[in-house]
Amino acid sequence: MDKLIEKIIAKHNPTVMGLDPLLEYVPEHIRRGRSIGEALFKFNRGLIDCTADLIPAIKPQSAYYELYGLEGIQALHQTISYAREAGLYVILDAKRGDIGSTAEAYAGAYLGIRDAGPDCITVNPYLGSDGVLPFTRMAVKNNKDIFVLVKTSNKSSGELQDIDAGGEPLYRRTAALVREWGDTAGGFGYNRCGAVVGATYPAQIAELRAFMPETFFLIPGYGAQGGKAADIAAAFDKHGLGAIVNSSRGLMCAYQKAGDDGKDYQKYTREAVIAMRDDLCSHLPPM
Amino acid sequence: MDKLIEKIIAKHNPTVMGLDPLLEYVPEHIRRGRSIGEALFKFNRGLIDCTADLIPAIKPQSAYYELYGLEGIQALHQTISYAREAGLYVILDAKRGDIGSTAEAYAGAYLGIRDAGPDCITVNPYLGSDGVLPFTRMAVKNNKDIFVLVKTSNKSSGELQDIDAGGEPLYRRTAALVREWGDTAGGFGYNRCGAVVGATYPAQIAELRAFMPETFFLIPGYGAQGGKAADIAAAFDKHGLGAIVNSSRGLMCAYQKAGDDGKDYQKYTREAVIAMRDDLCSHLPPM
Repeated sequence: MDKLIEKIIAKHNPTVMGLDPLLEYVPEHIRRGRSIGEALFKFNRGLIDCTADLIPAIKPQSAYYELYGLEGIQALHQTISYAREAGLYVILDAKRGDIGSTAEAYAGAYLGIRDAGPDCITVNPYLGSDGVLPFTRMAVKNNKDIFVLVKTSNKSSGELQDIDAGGEPLYRRTAALVREWGDTAGGFGYNRCGAVVGATYPAQIAELRAFMPETFFLIPGYGAQGGKAADIAAAFDKHGLGAIVNSSRGLMCAYQKAGDDGKDYQKYTREAVIAMRDDLCSHLPPM
Repeated sequence: MDKLIEKIIAKHNPTVMGLDPLLEYVPEHIRRGRSIGEALFKFNRGLIDCTADLIPAIKPQSAYYELYGLEGIQALHQTISYAREAGLYVILDAKRGDIGSTAEAYAGAYLGIRDAGPDCITVNPYLGSDGVLPFTRMAVKNNKDIFVLVKTSNKSSGELQDIDAGGEPLYRRTAALVREWGDTAGGFGYNRCGAVVGATYPAQIAELRAFMPETFFLIPGYGAQGGKAADIAAAFDKHGLGAIVNSSRGLMCAYQKAGDDGKDYQKYTREAVIAMRDDLCSHLPPM
């Protein structure tokens, strides 16, 4: 995770901006006269332009590009390239996971090129080691990272993840596997196999931080989903590191919340990013 | 599952051909002079042409198309359209799963058009109901189906799936959720929410068949992964229905196993499909 952590320190900001561009989020003046793919990419480019000096990373959610077919996926590829050129770390939120040979194909698809494509992908652990290790091997080879789902932010995440598995919840068993899957820790003490832990479950954040001190956290659920900075603070270490916090709609759609027609979406997104950074940092030790 | 079951009965064959076209599986004479996307689609078309009168369904694995970028994904779309026109039922093996709003986007991407695209998608249950129900709702709306991972065919599937969850293995808890997620049973007694159960775990096949009598099974792991017809027979009901069995490499790459240079790949695939059908049916009650 060293690449990501260096960028977090440089920006003094543990925020990742989710780029989940449903077409209805794209301001009218950007949509007009453009194909869907062109509109999605132009919107994303504008969001990156107005925040690249403030944030270390973006997290495009693959579903919102797959929804629009080939032109959506092309916009995803363009967005990833553009963000890399802007110096941002790119987490592709795709939650892939499959049997070994297929996991290898997914790893090749997303982590297969050292100096292009996403820096990191999210992975689903339901298939166990042979669904995850092809990703970690490719990550080591190409200096990239992964985040494995441990305790997700959604309401029903407990249906399987909280099941009592011999005196501890299932997500702890997943967490134990994630610790095994991590290689040796990097320069900042964190290894390449991170964990997704939802901001909406603060008690689990604190428990898992203690349980897996070398595992970096990706924390979705801040803002629109209800997670608060005070709840998230337990994810961080004494140096103010250890996690990156995602907000998607709260940043992308800040103009809608302000009642703006979208002409000034960059101004509102920038303000929302600064407010989120200041909110998070006010609850953390200085980096 | 009625659409699928009607096709199984019409062909007297519970086989689904997996289309996982790694470039190294594509015969040399097809690759020559073609882009990757063109070669993948031409190979798939040939495989469909030589088997469409014998099999009810194909199962493209999304990873092997995503691996080749936009042109791979275009070949996937072309393959799905071509298979539909040939009268085949299409199961997209994509193992998607995410929080509610994102699951909706995936459901829209793959089950969103009634008369086009896949008939069915595979779904990962780790996020619980709100990661799955957007798929079942879209399936009901557009007369499509889903298969949820319950007990996967790979070696390490037990690391999470077999964990003792209060006296029963975790996959049983997943199976109980799958039963809840199913709507009312269709004309053949099976509902729209099926289960993935690996051929490599015969005891679990029998146990789960008894536990979820209205759930149709998608069974990977026959052939190359080691699953045998005799082991799989327990997945079927007294009418010879209840499951569809996948083989990918065993059918697509039959020419390689025979030592052929690929010129006659259609002949070898056709022979392998007939042998698999006869093997499966010899262990089942007549449909």
